[in-house]
Amino acid sequence: MDNWLIKQARLSPNSIAVDDGTQKLTFRQLADDAGTLAGQLTAQQVPAHSRVALLANNTLTGYRIAMAVLSSGRTIVWLNKRLTTAELLRQFVDSEASTCLVADDLWRADFPKAFLQFSTLLATTAVAESPQTTFDLAQVASIMYTSGTTGAPKGVLQTFGNHYNSALASALNLGITPRDEWLCAVPIFHISGFSIMMRGLIYGMTVRLTTRFDADEINAILINEPVTTMSVVPYMLKKLLALQEPVSTPYNSRFRTMLLGGGPIDRETLKRCEKHGIDVVQSYGMTETCSQIVALSNADADAKIGSVGQPLFSTQLKLGDNHEILVKTPALTPGYLNRPTALTSKTTVDGWYQTGDVGHLDNDGFLYIDGRIDDMIISGGENIFPDEVEAVYQSCPGIRDIAVVGEANETWGMVPVAFVVPNGTLDTITLKQFGREHLAHYKVPKRFIQIDALPVNAGGKVQRVNLRKLL
Amino acid sequence: MDNWLIKQARLSPNSIAVDDGTQKLTFRQLADDAGTLAGQLTAQQVPAHSRVALLANNTLTGYRIAMAVLSSGRTIVWLNKRLTTAELLRQFVDSEASTCLVADDLWRADFPKAFLQFSTLLATTAVAESPQTTFDLAQVASIMYTSGTTGAPKGVLQTFGNHYNSALASALNLGITPRDEWLCAVPIFHISGFSIMMRGLIYGMTVRLTTRFDADEINAILINEPVTTMSVVPYMLKKLLALQEPVSTPYNSRFRTMLLGGGPIDRETLKRCEKHGIDVVQSYGMTETCSQIVALSNADADAKIGSVGQPLFSTQLKLGDNHEILVKTPALTPGYLNRPTALTSKTTVDGWYQTGDVGHLDNDGFLYIDGRIDDMIISGGENIFPDEVEAVYQSCPGIRDIAVVGEANETWGMVPVAFVVPNGTLDTITLKQFGREHLAHYKVPKRFIQIDALPVNAGGKVQRVNLRKLL
Repeated sequence: MDNWLIKQARLSPNSIAVDDGTQKLTFRQLADDAGTLAGQLTAQQVPAHSRVALLANNTLTGYRIAMAVLSSGRTIVWLNKRLTTAELLRQFVDSEASTCLVADDLWRADFPKAFLQFSTLLATTAVAESPQTTFDLAQVASIMYTSGTTGAPKGVLQTFGNHYNSALASALNLGITPRDEWLCAVPIFHISGFSIMMRGLIYGMTVRLTTRFDADEINAILINEPVTTMSVVPYMLKKLLALQEPVSTPYNSRFRTMLLGGGPIDRETLKRCEKHGIDVVQSYGMTETCSQIVALSNADADAKIGSVGQPLFSTQLKLGDNHEILVKTPALTPGYLNRPTALTSKTTVDGWYQTGDVGHLDNDGFLYIDGRIDDMIISGGENIFPDEVEAVYQSCPGIRDIAVVGEANETWGMVPVAFVVPNGTLDTITLKQFGREHLAHYKVPKRFIQIDALPVNAGGKVQRVNLRKLL
Repeated sequence: MDNWLIKQARLSPNSIAVDDGTQKLTFRQLADDAGTLAGQLTAQQVPAHSRVALLANNTLTGYRIAMAVLSSGRTIVWLNKRLTTAELLRQFVDSEASTCLVADDLWRADFPKAFLQFSTLLATTAVAESPQTTFDLAQVASIMYTSGTTGAPKGVLQTFGNHYNSALASALNLGITPRDEWLCAVPIFHISGFSIMMRGLIYGMTVRLTTRFDADEINAILINEPVTTMSVVPYMLKKLLALQEPVSTPYNSRFRTMLLGGGPIDRETLKRCEKHGIDVVQSYGMTETCSQIVALSNADADAKIGSVGQPLFSTQLKLGDNHEILVKTPALTPGYLNRPTALTSKTTVDGWYQTGDVGHLDNDGFLYIDGRIDDMIISGGENIFPDEVEAVYQSCPGIRDIAVVGEANETWGMVPVAFVVPNGTLDTITLKQFGREHLAHYKVPKRFIQIDALPVNAGGKVQRVNLRKLL
């Protein structure tokens, strides 16, 4: 295919490609800018076709540099700014990136000399370079390290074809109109954010970029600017919803959809969204599938509350052993960097990718996520999902945070036990009592262990594997 | 991928798949119906996975049967009802179809016994059959014989992947919304019509089917029904436009686009459309590319009048020798049935498909079609396109129809000559005079030859090759 940026510079030259609230760039300007930056990359000895690590916030500069890396035929290695320097270096080395481009405000004193600040790159004297004329769908566009809750992070290869298929599958689900504008407050170094950049390129759509998630600021944007779509995680949705209560100010008339990913959300929040006229499309996906592969359309949201929906048009889905979710999708990664067997070990002989998530389907084919297969506790033949137990305990007084894991047990095989960050003193009797009132008996944790804080990874997810080690 | 019909029966079970003005079928109903029909096909000894020729009008029955053939894993061979029985039989034999299903009102006395009337199929007692669960993108979904203006018709193989990519490219250009409804008054046995059926399946969109093009009826539909898009050829657009003059009745508020294909249209007609608020998207494509690969967006229609637009997002385009239009697109046919070298002979070594059309690009990359390379007349080193000369003569009084071809000439190599169907008596002096006033001297036909009627093929296109034989 033609280079997507160059293509949009022809198809939609004067459409706004990106808008950070202060400055807008058209596709024509973004393409020209990418040519200038490509020249600067070369002048800084960043080899053609090399991998380039990026450590960036959601800024216009980060966006421009990412586009330049892609358009010049180089591959982006997205790094997560929440990682320690040691973790960043491990990924940098593993990726064999030629350099790491770092946003000035993310620079750290202990970074190696080979790393390059954005301002240094931008100040380089160089002549503009012609872009790579074509994007091969099989070519790797980006690499993202999964912030796995178990094991060492692995670099997920994402091809142009993966991004293309993902964007088109989303278009078939959510629709596309010439005036779409997608608000990107999720990190561009995650697939949730980067997939918005790629949709922008593929649809010729405006991406409204915000540096961080500030609920008041986002709320004002949704009210005052022509944003049509926004990607959110449950935390963000709840914060935005709170600003619409008790008195709601409607979002701008073009606003269509909150695309919700990153975990389950409670029924009450969804009901409140409905009350305030905020359409929420729940979705399910992962870095390996280049974002969403399952989504709940607006039309079904009401009848299928709690479900993440149906597999998108180009995704096939079924349940395997232990109800593990298996998928086939053209958005599936071709593999992990430097780990030739890592994907095949997660793939059945007939080509189904094993997601590691457990779920169930209703009669209409709607998917409900139950939890991670690694977290599942089989107790006396019954399956227990920590997510469910933890969700129930969210409404129990005296608890700030809770995580449930399985512990070996002679009678039952496994039993659930809970790690609790209490509000004040831990009251085990009350907690057990609460569990018996709200959960089947076998799901109630047999022990409640006090802990100061739950271990979380860079993505904020609880690392149950580390809790299991404590037992 | 999952079988598209079954997929939409899950994703959009209660959405209207097809509406012929009298009856509506939801995707769920259409999928169930396809299962019943598949059983009837089997009961009628139509082998699984075989090719099935279809001779159908744009009726609901034809639509249902086409869907059943696809959904059951069989391949459609679309036949053109305007062909003679001898021509139909040649294509039927060439395609090795197991049978030919014929709409009752298209049945002819000289059809072989192996052909089956729709009513016979529908009256067959049989149990419903399960559909083919998946559609392989590399699998041939349909075969269409090109009504070539030269040579014997060839069966163009169209894979599911071709249709899928074509539909998605169109979506990226025209947008898609959950309430789209596409009016299909163009024949479903042409790619213009069948591509609407396929978009309906892929988008989960309603197809509004009309048996024929009756301008008054179509005008009423556009005014009163929630149609958003319609595919037209110039003749249809002009007829519809005439009904909007002198006093126009606006189309329904959701109406977005007339997708215009099938040949050039004059500037004046486009200006009149603009005046009446009818958005026209011009396009360019062919059976071999599964419909449009180049289109002019609404936004550019005004500035680029006369152009067919820019290559769609997934299409690459450039000009080759003699300004022949070369393309690369995922919608390109994998080849012609039983003619293994026919496609490769039209493809450059580096994979560009030679369309046989000649065009030029402006500075912004917009394409203008000049004519067929076979029709191009090189006269004293100048290129002359019959289309241009004929278009100019359309406004010359005394002419009902005109076609221009090249004739060998000692001095100039070739010179243009015209075959004319006059209104009354042929007045060669006036015609020459008219040409000199409106065309460069070398483009004016050197001779005007009277003819009763121009030879046309089944698609209504003038067969210049037959005129050249008369010289």
